[in-house]
Amino acid sequence: MAVAEKTELRAYCVQVAQRARRAGQQLACLRGEQKNRWLLRSAQCLRQTTDALLAENQKDIAAADQYGLSDAAVDRLRLTPDRIEQLAIGLEEIAALEDPIGKTIDSTVRPNGLLIQKVRVPLGVVFFVYESRPNVTADAAAICVKSGNAVILRGGKEARHSSRAIVDVLDDAARQSGVPPDAVQLVSTTDRDAVGHFLTLDELIDVAIPRGGEGLIRRVAAEARMPVIKHFTGNCHVYVDRSADLDMAERITVNSKCQRMGVCNAAESLVVHADAASEFLPRIGTALAKKGVVIRGDVRTRELVPGAEQAREEDYAAEYLGPVISVRVVGSIDEAIDHINQYGSGHTDTIVTQDLNAARRFTTRIDSSAVMVNASTRFNDGGQFGLGAEIGISTDKFHARGPCGLEELTSYKYVVQGDGQTRT
Amino acid sequence: MAVAEKTELRAYCVQVAQRARRAGQQLACLRGEQKNRWLLRSAQCLRQTTDALLAENQKDIAAADQYGLSDAAVDRLRLTPDRIEQLAIGLEEIAALEDPIGKTIDSTVRPNGLLIQKVRVPLGVVFFVYESRPNVTADAAAICVKSGNAVILRGGKEARHSSRAIVDVLDDAARQSGVPPDAVQLVSTTDRDAVGHFLTLDELIDVAIPRGGEGLIRRVAAEARMPVIKHFTGNCHVYVDRSADLDMAERITVNSKCQRMGVCNAAESLVVHADAASEFLPRIGTALAKKGVVIRGDVRTRELVPGAEQAREEDYAAEYLGPVISVRVVGSIDEAIDHINQYGSGHTDTIVTQDLNAARRFTTRIDSSAVMVNASTRFNDGGQFGLGAEIGISTDKFHARGPCGLEELTSYKYVVQGDGQTRT
Repeated sequence: MAVAEKTELRAYCVQVAQRARRAGQQLACLRGEQKNRWLLRSAQCLRQTTDALLAENQKDIAAADQYGLSDAAVDRLRLTPDRIEQLAIGLEEIAALEDPIGKTIDSTVRPNGLLIQKVRVPLGVVFFVYESRPNVTADAAAICVKSGNAVILRGGKEARHSSRAIVDVLDDAARQSGVPPDAVQLVSTTDRDAVGHFLTLDELIDVAIPRGGEGLIRRVAAEARMPVIKHFTGNCHVYVDRSADLDMAERITVNSKCQRMGVCNAAESLVVHADAASEFLPRIGTALAKKGVVIRGDVRTRELVPGAEQAREEDYAAEYLGPVISVRVVGSIDEAIDHINQYGSGHTDTIVTQDLNAARRFTTRIDSSAVMVNASTRFNDGGQFGLGAEIGISTDKFHARGPCGLEELTSYKYVVQGDGQTRT
Repeated sequence: MAVAEKTELRAYCVQVAQRARRAGQQLACLRGEQKNRWLLRSAQCLRQTTDALLAENQKDIAAADQYGLSDAAVDRLRLTPDRIEQLAIGLEEIAALEDPIGKTIDSTVRPNGLLIQKVRVPLGVVFFVYESRPNVTADAAAICVKSGNAVILRGGKEARHSSRAIVDVLDDAARQSGVPPDAVQLVSTTDRDAVGHFLTLDELIDVAIPRGGEGLIRRVAAEARMPVIKHFTGNCHVYVDRSADLDMAERITVNSKCQRMGVCNAAESLVVHADAASEFLPRIGTALAKKGVVIRGDVRTRELVPGAEQAREEDYAAEYLGPVISVRVVGSIDEAIDHINQYGSGHTDTIVTQDLNAARRFTTRIDSSAVMVNASTRFNDGGQFGLGAEIGISTDKFHARGPCGLEELTSYKYVVQGDGQTRT
């Protein structure tokens, strides 16, 4: 690329971010009814432009070959009348959620009469980087704007016609609803360097949220000068305690592993107490084999599960996202906890137990975004937790951990009301 | 420095951080009474070792000349029996605060019977970098450990004997109270490169907190690979609205500017509505002159305040930390708000007004950590807000904003209790 083009690309990114900053300042003061009007109008317009959206989506589908997309990826890319209807319903559901902005979330009156209120405010500007699912475009825009933030969307080039068409609809609806049109901006260049430029603009962008493969997320985390909401991987564990109800343990293990294999809250590792192993491992081996899942286990596992492969060290750290699970037999709950804290990714881990002390020990000592007792790991999800909407899941401890909904996209400020107080 | 020494320095920093990580894992599960026992024992030991502490402090005072410390800096460095008593009382006060860890801060029961609880947990490991006040050593250690975090303290070399003596006392008390001694570690090298090494260890350190001059804070923010809790400067504003009670406006302006000039929540800028200027500016000019404060104002200010200097653009962005204030006359509250959002540092801004709409507009639109109505900017402080203790003030929007006490040093995890739920 010529130097002039590079300078131009950076200037473009700065302009987009400046427009987002201004739109964010306006959004912070907007009433909830205006944001909801925009969401409902957008839903209506999406339905009305179904044919045009499908036509634009067809261009992306036609180009999918040239990007070498897999059949599964093409399916994720595809819009249908039903999927567009789902998009519209999604926006209506977000409109129905409580507006988080302006709420007093804590308050004290000090002895000198000062009223100290903690008031929820937006973060400001979100830079959202994602891969090729066009439905994410509408969803992310809706969550950001409902929580009072302007958003810069950087979608995958594979979905660019679809994303552009969706953002045009949101834009039109914004103009009709008194929402600043720059509240939602889609990055118009597919140049990969644009992402790098945005990630340096920490004076204009308050948070970066990458959603996609681990490579994308690691790149964003490494380059971003602003905070990032992210998880790299989900190496989730099911621990079957000595006291577990083994029917329940089987149901939870199979559900955690198999209900949907390619997602971050699917189980990748099974840890079994030695006292339960001889009864549990043969039956779970059979149950998982029926689902086509390969077991990679330690020596004890291989004694108990015919056909199990030998696990290597790296298997215990792996996020397979497919029909493989690592298995380890431990001598105590503490050994299980240490194993999980060492090899896990701090995402979601569950214990199956009937023992109150074991449950308490596990939930206290496991250092993950969600720690579960007698429930499938698959429940770590904004919708399942009742957040109403989710922009991602965080495994960091700073700001937001676990599923991130509207509140996780906000900050607060202190509003202090006095009647002339001075400090002595 | 030779290559071998450099490698050795990095290895030392990694070891300190690893020890802190392990201590943090133990602290996360410690009962509140053990942390309190440590705080109370530390207070007692500080009192009992007063003579030894004073002797160590004397070494720092004797060396102050070689570091070229100002008289004010030497005074801040000095320990006295009274100051040691204050340190001890400070620790006892922190012991008396509610333990934030383990508390359920939110919960829902889902339709499928899952109980979702948000439970407060420590951040993990804090890297605290500060300048030469030895009292900060005990205070920061106490706040971090009470909130369940291990802390790595990197104090100024000017206070190294005093800080070492204080940390030795805290260490002994830890051994006597069942708190891991590595919960509080003082970096033993004064090599500046050590800070750089710690700032790269984002896998072992969860947050960096710099406290001191702007140069130190900018260095930490630029180099840190982990999140930082910080404010660069405090350019705080008093805005006197057209409807202000001018007696109150004078009291609040003088208090905000003069009660203590060298601190981050002191006012540096005065903004006055044109309708109030001709009456207010001459009297505040006189009041500030009595306190030795120089006014740098715009044309209208200079017409009304004899002897006022001409303000340059950079005066409106300046944090003087001394007897100077910038003054600007504006035609409307919106002009005032735009001025403050443009030149301010997002720290603390106050409006003096009798007008409900003006107060509401100001608190909604000003984008600062604390926005006040009819109160001195000097109140933006953990103690004044009732947090009980403060490790710093944040002007960022991510994670923590405003004064940071115990809760701001925590995160949460989701604890999910089921009885066999699987996802369909």
